[in-house]
Amino acid sequence: MSVTVVGSIAYDRVKTPFGERERMLGGAATHFALAASFFDQVRVVGPVGDDFADLETLKLRGTNVDDVEHVPGGKTFFWHGEYGWDLNSRDTHDTQLGVFETFEPKLGEASKDAEILFLANIQPDVQRAVREQSRASFVAMDSMNLWIEIARDSLVQTIAGVDCVILNDAELRQLTGKPNLFTAAREVLAMGPSVVVAKQGEYGAALVTESEFFSLPAYPLETVVDPTGAGDTFAGGFVGHLARRPGDYRTAMAYGTALASFNVEEFGTERVARLTAAEIDRRIEELRAITRL
Amino acid sequence: MSVTVVGSIAYDRVKTPFGERERMLGGAATHFALAASFFDQVRVVGPVGDDFADLETLKLRGTNVDDVEHVPGGKTFFWHGEYGWDLNSRDTHDTQLGVFETFEPKLGEASKDAEILFLANIQPDVQRAVREQSRASFVAMDSMNLWIEIARDSLVQTIAGVDCVILNDAELRQLTGKPNLFTAAREVLAMGPSVVVAKQGEYGAALVTESEFFSLPAYPLETVVDPTGAGDTFAGGFVGHLARRPGDYRTAMAYGTALASFNVEEFGTERVARLTAAEIDRRIEELRAITRL
Repeated sequence: MSVTVVGSIAYDRVKTPFGERERMLGGAATHFALAASFFDQVRVVGPVGDDFADLETLKLRGTNVDDVEHVPGGKTFFWHGEYGWDLNSRDTHDTQLGVFETFEPKLGEASKDAEILFLANIQPDVQRAVREQSRASFVAMDSMNLWIEIARDSLVQTIAGVDCVILNDAELRQLTGKPNLFTAAREVLAMGPSVVVAKQGEYGAALVTESEFFSLPAYPLETVVDPTGAGDTFAGGFVGHLARRPGDYRTAMAYGTALASFNVEEFGTERVARLTAAEIDRRIEELRAITRL
Repeated sequence: MSVTVVGSIAYDRVKTPFGERERMLGGAATHFALAASFFDQVRVVGPVGDDFADLETLKLRGTNVDDVEHVPGGKTFFWHGEYGWDLNSRDTHDTQLGVFETFEPKLGEASKDAEILFLANIQPDVQRAVREQSRASFVAMDSMNLWIEIARDSLVQTIAGVDCVILNDAELRQLTGKPNLFTAAREVLAMGPSVVVAKQGEYGAALVTESEFFSLPAYPLETVVDPTGAGDTFAGGFVGHLARRPGDYRTAMAYGTALASFNVEEFGTERVARLTAAEIDRRIEELRAITRL
């Protein structure tokens, strides 16, 4: 199979209690691709500006960048954020959409043909436009609080057309107005998808389908350096494994969890870029060990 | 074996989004005993006033109340609280310590002889005085943010003398000043105990020893009516199972989790009072199913 991801490619300026980076490769599509590329051929669809100089990192592990659109005269999406002492809160100091502002994704034929499509967090109308171009048999998506607030109807319409929704638990609650996570997930299932994944940050993640509930803790780390991209890295591991083993949701949750745990150990893409499959599998075994009841 | 618990016996006035009770049986020792009594003989040590009229509920499943001290002319501990819409926040409207204010626990010989002792949340000096009377081979304890704030040195001294600390994850962070849960738990282990349990509310609980990390999600409930006593009920299930199977921490975590999940389904002690062992075991099996990786 192959996996197409549509979303942001960015430069991030990030400060955490453990250090800072002035300008590092980031963006949802980037983090997703670096994780999913362990499992299958990944195709990235997203815009970059004249300042983009990290195509080689995007291409790691065979990722195809034919649909990375270079917008002449444009500037790559830029985000500047700072995390609080416990890494659970963050302030955004600056967001420059750059080429992302007028992004109209155009999928090449090979990207349309990928069996799996991941719609990273972008405006839900745009997500739907991509979904309509794609011939994927399994479509997963992310979103964020902003779209729940200003484009809820469009978001619900997008959700109706996908198989799998991956959101933070707070976003699921906000989307449905239901404080109970289980009830909120069931409401999202009723909108159309067959799988809902609730990301719970340091607590792990839960998966809800019509017939199944599964919960997995985060991998216990003593050192978390930078949470940026953890959610997209989780999605890359989760969706990536599903490309290899359709329907094997539990192991997919473990791969998402393991990949995300590596991601946060260093800044940006630094750790996952040089990660090995053997390291991932070792962490999967550790996850089995720490959850065995 | 047998289990002695020292702590509050109370009347609670509670309002949640799902209803209210003007005056219901509560208190840490009560909730602990009702859960632990499924596993072993429990002995309750705590004070009540002239107004106490629920001794029969305390005695359910063979719990011994010889050391429940009736203070003539006194009033039973009373707490009045109200929970917010998502049950994660609560306001205390009134606390009347009553007979609990001058409580000096006196353990009878049989209570001193119990192999297991649970020090529910009380002033840490008092916990230590109890610990010194006891001849238990395994001592577990709870505490709260108040004692971390106003009696930290005494609390650390108490922790040094027990085998197992059961705290909310926020309390572990507060106690150690470490935002990372894993690091915080290891700091508490360094104070003396061999087991630290971090209660994580709706997210479940984690257990940390020198050699082991184990994490278990909460049992997924669509209906949570009243969280009052969930932590003490968890402790009762956890410590109760350890009385029956010393060192079997993982299954103990499952029993704590299962008992707590029943506790929150109705107000106060209502659900656990009429619970059956078969219902608990069914939920243990469900916990195994939803965590199997």
